[in-house]
Amino acid sequence: MFHSQLCWSLLLVSIAAAAEPQPKARPLTMADILAGSKPADWRPLDPENTLYLELATGRVVIELAPAFAPHHVANVKALAREHYFDGLAVIRLQDNYVVQWADPNGDKPELARKIQTAKRTLPAEFERSLDPKLPFTRLPDGDIYAPEVGFSGNFPVARDPKSGKMWLIHCYGMVGAGRDTGRDTGGGTELYAVIGHSPRHLDRNVTLLGRVVQGMELLSALPRGTGALGFYEKADQRVPLKAVRLAADVPAAERTQLELFRTDTLAFQELVESRRNRREEWFQAQAGHIEICNVPLPVRAAPPAAR
Amino acid sequence: MFHSQLCWSLLLVSIAAAAEPQPKARPLTMADILAGSKPADWRPLDPENTLYLELATGRVVIELAPAFAPHHVANVKALAREHYFDGLAVIRLQDNYVVQWADPNGDKPELARKIQTAKRTLPAEFERSLDPKLPFTRLPDGDIYAPEVGFSGNFPVARDPKSGKMWLIHCYGMVGAGRDTGRDTGGGTELYAVIGHSPRHLDRNVTLLGRVVQGMELLSALPRGTGALGFYEKADQRVPLKAVRLAADVPAAERTQLELFRTDTLAFQELVESRRNRREEWFQAQAGHIEICNVPLPVRAAPPAAR
Repeated sequence: MFHSQLCWSLLLVSIAAAAEPQPKARPLTMADILAGSKPADWRPLDPENTLYLELATGRVVIELAPAFAPHHVANVKALAREHYFDGLAVIRLQDNYVVQWADPNGDKPELARKIQTAKRTLPAEFERSLDPKLPFTRLPDGDIYAPEVGFSGNFPVARDPKSGKMWLIHCYGMVGAGRDTGRDTGGGTELYAVIGHSPRHLDRNVTLLGRVVQGMELLSALPRGTGALGFYEKADQRVPLKAVRLAADVPAAERTQLELFRTDTLAFQELVESRRNRREEWFQAQAGHIEICNVPLPVRAAPPAAR
Repeated sequence: MFHSQLCWSLLLVSIAAAAEPQPKARPLTMADILAGSKPADWRPLDPENTLYLELATGRVVIELAPAFAPHHVANVKALAREHYFDGLAVIRLQDNYVVQWADPNGDKPELARKIQTAKRTLPAEFERSLDPKLPFTRLPDGDIYAPEVGFSGNFPVARDPKSGKMWLIHCYGMVGAGRDTGRDTGGGTELYAVIGHSPRHLDRNVTLLGRVVQGMELLSALPRGTGALGFYEKADQRVPLKAVRLAADVPAAERTQLELFRTDTLAFQELVESRRNRREEWFQAQAGHIEICNVPLPVRAAPPAAR
């Protein structure tokens, strides 16, 4: 009797469901996901690993990647702390490639900026050993260049289980340490950011050490250099760096308070899906796939409570 | 005897080869390939399918793609020939995405530029039937978004043998016809060019109709718009179009005489290989792969004889 009552009840529920279907949940857009995100879906920038590039037009905010380039990050921090970069300049901008800042007199020993405690060059940190304990949110659609790609924190990362290596990927806005021909000739005294289509052939050829998280347009819209490789041909075309500072060294009230959308959450998985198949009304066709450098990494002003 | 003499001779040759090895052919770089290219490895632009965007800062040269968007190309030519675009403006630039030019008063019927003989809108040409007779140089390393990718003429193209369709790809510099929400609301009165990482989710969502082959930096370095989607918020931020002309309508002496590196040649296959594995001394690691939007499509001033 009890059994048959239960069955009857279930049948009624089932009939009701068939007669009045629940409105089907609309697939979420990125705007929906961000609007519905919880405070725990975001994380603040660590001032000890955040670099400010101060230009006359404003501030470029760079998150450093000590998990991938510990020695280069430490050296760039040391260079910033001894004010090495202040008064140096953007010296190169090659369209659809990179913008680079460095000492314009770097090749003239008598005029070149002196280094105090930091190092001029460092052994390359093109890749690191694959540590399964490092966070890694793998993307589902593969990659042309690497066996596995995904995000570790807010950095695009490739992994090769066969070689046991992992490395940062040259997506738009990634920051690396320029070098000469020799493998170990970089170190962070000259830095560049990607301003075009991801130049993936640079992966594992340069030490990447961070990513621009705000102010990218202050670099990407600068005039293109007309010399070879986009170098500015005249001194007055260069764009001076007012200063380069570690956020931790800037008074708290003068810091740019940002939060990054975490990549180790269910909300991020939803965001990836919302970009593999765009649900905004405008889209007529769904790509069904996403390539790593097309995944957006949202940034927002930190809510006052989080500051 | 003969046999032993032959063997001895071969042995001598072999010893000589070991002692004085022939210089091993160095793998070619792109610079080598271009330097060694023959006139037949290049082709001129067709003035009937070349559009000039005249800005105060110079000329942007666009090759049109009638094989992929015949009606849109014809309409853009008709618009140019009735001087529709002259005095309109760049109205939008969204960092790492697109720059767009159109009628700033397009949404005000009483102020909007009138159209004479061209069409305001056209049915979408997002893709076309796969015609095996159209040139197609397939790339060897696959693609995240499409079953096959390669080049048809100097355009990046995707193909899907299953659906029997092919379509143009949103690489850097590709030009498309902006549209409203409806599928058939484009037509060429507003055009955009890709200025960042290839937004492949736009493939098959917009009619692509050409590619910038020279002057891209005149568009990509313009200030980023600060409004939603990168629209310029103030009228004086817009960049006026002095004129938009078909090359065929410009006196021959005033044309920009360019040649494009053909993609249906052995030399192009070598160029692709030279970019899959970079042989320049600077490179420490070879990517071993190439993604379609990273393949360079060289352009040069036409030698006087070819003009």
